Amino acid sequence: MEENLKGLYAALLVPFDENGQVKEEGLKAIAKNAIENEELDGLYVNGSSGENFLINTEQKKQIFKIAKEAVGDDVKMIAQIGSLDLNEAIELGKYATELGYDALSAVTPFYYPLSFEEIKQYYFDLIEATQNKMIIYSIPDLTGVNIDVDQFGELFNHEKIIGVKYTAPNFFLLERLRKAYPDKLIFSGFDEMLIQAVISGVDGAIGSTYNVNGKRSRQIFELAQQGKVDEAYQVQHETNDIIAKILELGLYPTLKEILKYRGIDSGLPKRPFAPFNEENRAALDELVNKYNL
Amino acid sequence: MEENLKGLYAALLVPFDENGQVKEEGLKAIAKNAIENEELDGLYVNGSSGENFLINTEQKKQIFKIAKEAVGDDVKMIAQIGSLDLNEAIELGKYATELGYDALSAVTPFYYPLSFEEIKQYYFDLIEATQNKMIIYSIPDLTGVNIDVDQFGELFNHEKIIGVKYTAPNFFLLERLRKAYPDKLIFSGFDEMLIQAVISGVDGAIGSTYNVNGKRSRQIFELAQQGKVDEAYQVQHETNDIIAKILELGLYPTLKEILKYRGIDSGLPKRPFAPFNEENRAALDELVNKYNL
Amino acid sequence: MEENLKGLYAALLVPFDENGQVKEEGLKAIAKNAIENEELDGLYVNGSSGENFLINTEQKKQIFKIAKEAVGDDVKMIAQIGSLDLNEAIELGKYATELGYDALSAVTPFYYPLSFEEIKQYYFDLIEATQNKMIIYSIPDLTGVNIDVDQFGELFNHEKIIGVKYTAPNFFLLERLRKAYPDKLIFSGFDEMLIQAVISGVDGAIGSTYNVNGKRSRQIFELAQQGKVDEAYQVQHETNDIIAKILELGLYPTLKEILKYRGIDSGLPKRPFAPFNEENRAALDELVNKYNL
Amino acid sequence: MEENLKGLYAALLVPFDENGQVKEEGLKAIAKNAIENEELDGLYVNGSSGENFLINTEQKKQIFKIAKEAVGDDVKMIAQIGSLDLNEAIELGKYATELGYDALSAVTPFYYPLSFEEIKQYYFDLIEATQNKMIIYSIPDLTGVNIDVDQFGELFNHEKIIGVKYTAPNFFLLERLRKAYPDKLIFSGFDEMLIQAVISGVDGAIGSTYNVNGKRSRQIFELAQQGKVDEAYQVQHETNDIIAKILELGLYPTLKEILKYRGIDSGLPKRPFAPFNEENRAALDELVNKYNL
Repeated sequence: MEENLKGLYAALLVPFDENGQVKEEGLKAIAKNAIENEELDGLYVNGSSGENFLINTEQKKQIFKIAKEAVGDDVKMIAQIGSLDLNEAIELGKYATELGYDALSAVTPFYYPLSFEEIKQYYFDLIEATQNKMIIYSIPDLTGVNIDVDQFGELFNHEKIIGVKYTAPNFFLLERLRKAYPDKLIFSGFDEMLIQAVISGVDGAIGSTYNVNGKRSRQIFELAQQGKVDEAYQVQHETNDIIAKILELGLYPTLKEILKYRGIDSGLPKRPFAPFNEENRAALDELVNKYNL
Repeated sequence: MEENLKGLYAALLVPFDENGQVKEEGLKAIAKNAIENEELDGLYVNGSSGENFLINTEQKKQIFKIAKEAVGDDVKMIAQIGSLDLNEAIELGKYATELGYDALSAVTPFYYPLSFEEIKQYYFDLIEATQNKMIIYSIPDLTGVNIDVDQFGELFNHEKIIGVKYTAPNFFLLERLRKAYPDKLIFSGFDEMLIQAVISGVDGAIGSTYNVNGKRSRQIFELAQQGKVDEAYQVQHETNDIIAKILELGLYPTLKEILKYRGIDSGLPKRPFAPFNEENRAALDELVNKYNL
Repeated sequence: MEENLKGLYAALLVPFDENGQVKEEGLKAIAKNAIENEELDGLYVNGSSGENFLINTEQKKQIFKIAKEAVGDDVKMIAQIGSLDLNEAIELGKYATELGYDALSAVTPFYYPLSFEEIKQYYFDLIEATQNKMIIYSIPDLTGVNIDVDQFGELFNHEKIIGVKYTAPNFFLLERLRKAYPDKLIFSGFDEMLIQAVISGVDGAIGSTYNVNGKRSRQIFELAQQGKVDEAYQVQHETNDIIAKILELGLYPTLKEILKYRGIDSGLPKRPFAPFNEENRAALDELVNKYNL
Repeated sequence: MEENLKGLYAALLVPFDENGQVKEEGLKAIAKNAIENEELDGLYVNGSSGENFLINTEQKKQIFKIAKEAVGDDVKMIAQIGSLDLNEAIELGKYATELGYDALSAVTPFYYPLSFEEIKQYYFDLIEATQNKMIIYSIPDLTGVNIDVDQFGELFNHEKIIGVKYTAPNFFLLERLRKAYPDKLIFSGFDEMLIQAVISGVDGAIGSTYNVNGKRSRQIFELAQQGKVDEAYQVQHETNDIIAKILELGLYPTLKEILKYRGIDSGLPKRPFAPFNEENRAALDELVNKYNL
């Protein structure tokens, strides 16, 4: 197993201006915040939370570069390069590999209903072209793609497929994967179900709320790993109070607004996402104060 | 909270003959097996696993009676009385209450898309008529009915609604329920995700596989409650190896065949369920021997 | 093909009192209304629209008997006997056959996820026991059961399976069935998509709104069959204005209230369905007057 | 209503080489084939069938340009510019408008669950930036986005939103749209349900199979419009025999292989789509010969 890649990663948020361009200084600050303030182990760059599927190739490269430079070489970096355009994915994969990203990750292609064989070939093509390690990004709620335990086996047969970012609420499948593939990395993708994932034997977690709630998440992770389940669950309760309110106010806009309370120029969500609704400002002030976000 | 109802319950299997009639002696043996051999705390009678929705009112009463008589008054007994026919549900609720069942339970009405108000009124009518405690039976995969945390609040406002049999893979909602309603009983309904449910603070579990794998399930339950998560997870791994094979061979027919290895006359599934496929006999022999079922 | 069973059928509504008992005189009046006022060809008794799955065996028999007696022997009568309890279905099938029902119909068993083989055997068992003709009742939206064109072929191989009540919005499958099985009856089950079904070659239609809008439906049916598509579509527009409002006000309660404007004692929906919401009375008055219902 | 845009459009197929680059000569030939051989009225360029979501901005522009040049100015041209990247969509929209495309079209943004307000704003932003007419592209099966009749009303309130490419099997909603918005263009998106769409009053149709089966589709369209429903349905039967086989052999690869029988260099599908499976060659030969494709 790629022991060195274990740990907690922020699914890096990306600040945009009103024209949808990346705010570079803001991005650096967000990257640093995740590592220095939230004390996370690494960054998962250009994932769904980075609004990656709303931007173009050059912007994705720009983000890979800035994020890497912002946090230096001691931080674990995973580059999400998945794209419906295989050529773009290969280009991004090579670019991130050259930048020194520790591993690549790619969402299962969506929109078009591909066969599993076509999905598998997609990953093998990506690995062939980039010669870098690959973490499958499975998020059935958004892609509609469900991979079963045997199909994961076919993927994990490839030595360079080193694990999965598992964003699915099916803990039976998670347990089957953990047992069947002990030497493959499994990252939890649901911040609000972190404790259940930890006791299910995940090797780390990747989440958007870790950008603003990383320390609590680490508490959950470590307490649960130590068997201090009740303590961990109290922190998960508090964490889920935060997450429930963030979801209510709008996930990405609210996370970015929280960062602004820390003086970070976290900009706007990329259209078509609507900006934060100022009618919720009082509720957000209260949330930030109450939980010291 | 109804402290006394906490614990592990077998979702009682029911043996049928080829004409779909209940095999009374077999039923007694199955009930005893759950309590005496599998050392469970109680029986959940006439649930989905009892193929309840495939039989008529008199058979349901027959089963309530036999199960109760088989295990006596020291065993916790929950009667699943939910039916699309409210009159039948009321009749069953009164009957089970007279027999001394500790609480009633009712699946959310399915098939017809009812509003939440209609579902809530269904439960209030049942309680009004039976004056017994009620446990909501939530199983979205089979009913298509999803109740959110606020709607559970409206149900839990009724003092006689004492809890929920929670058979849904959404551990975020489970955590929200646990936190919002600390004095309501939550029973896990997914045997294959027991450990995650236990650390999510459930008060017990109700499952069909406990009829044949109760002891391991109690191990998972108690080890996880003690924070011995790794040990508990090893037992869950083994349990899920068993469950995965049982699901592969056909849930209800296979559970009944396993009981036959113990000399229990567990009969046939009720048509339209097909009987156990004898082509799987060798695989079942191996399963029973390997895990000493 | 069972030519004699072609035609337009009311999915018979059933009036209940506040205790959920059948109002016999009201039922007779509803049955007569369908045939004498709405000039329909037949009655589909104890379907979903008859709130069949909310009542017990004796009530179902009661309804079969009263409906048959109300309209006499010149009216085509189809008995929906499908039940999760195969024994009940057989009992109802024999009963309706003795009463002289022209054919039986049965919804695909729901709630429990059965294999196609188990569903097929369910139908073969029903036919074996009743020796009457069978019309498959396919309604995926409520049952979750999708039967493909080849599987329909396996069912239609049985000579006594004479057709399907097709309540699915998939007109590609409907066309495939029409072409592959020209001698099997296909009944449209979506009143609001009647014109599309007629030009797709259905042999008739079965619908709840025909209880109050039968004449318009026959106009749609006959004009479309004559190729007067534009004229038929104008009537479908008007019909769908009616249906859209009925759905908005609540399907079964509203249909029953409309019958009351005709002096029919159409009673209440069976709980857990809520009664008609009197706040909508003005809107219903307007609907009834505007379309002379 | 934009009367001039009524008619039958090929959802233009695009030939790729093994590196995923556009084969320009092949594309010209495919465009000409649609207009000259299949006698269609126009081209819908860069839709799902053009594997648009698998390629980059420059390739999309390349295709807009070549297709336009290939068929000249007398052919109706609709440019599908929808992209999750709003900036790309605007860039493509301006480019296609400059090229003289008659109207733009955009799929509802997918992957991220946007609110209807965000989707509406997405279209308004596109129109604001391009000042061209817009046809909503609704395809719930692939996007998961369901727009109801009132929400369509909010979109159609914008004068530059001139219609919808309606690829949904819900003919009740189609009828409601037809009645509520008589002056907006509705294009059928399901080739296999063309006849039902025509009698539902669509103004045209856009489909991938029209690239190889345009003449039959026009027959269906015109016969049905003339009320010759039986004749039209016979052609739809034959058309659906073709479509069923094409779907069985793999939609895009098979359509491209059929064009090769006409000497058109229709290339390969873009990866991750797998190329045509040569094991199906004999079946394809038979299909092409039997239906003279």
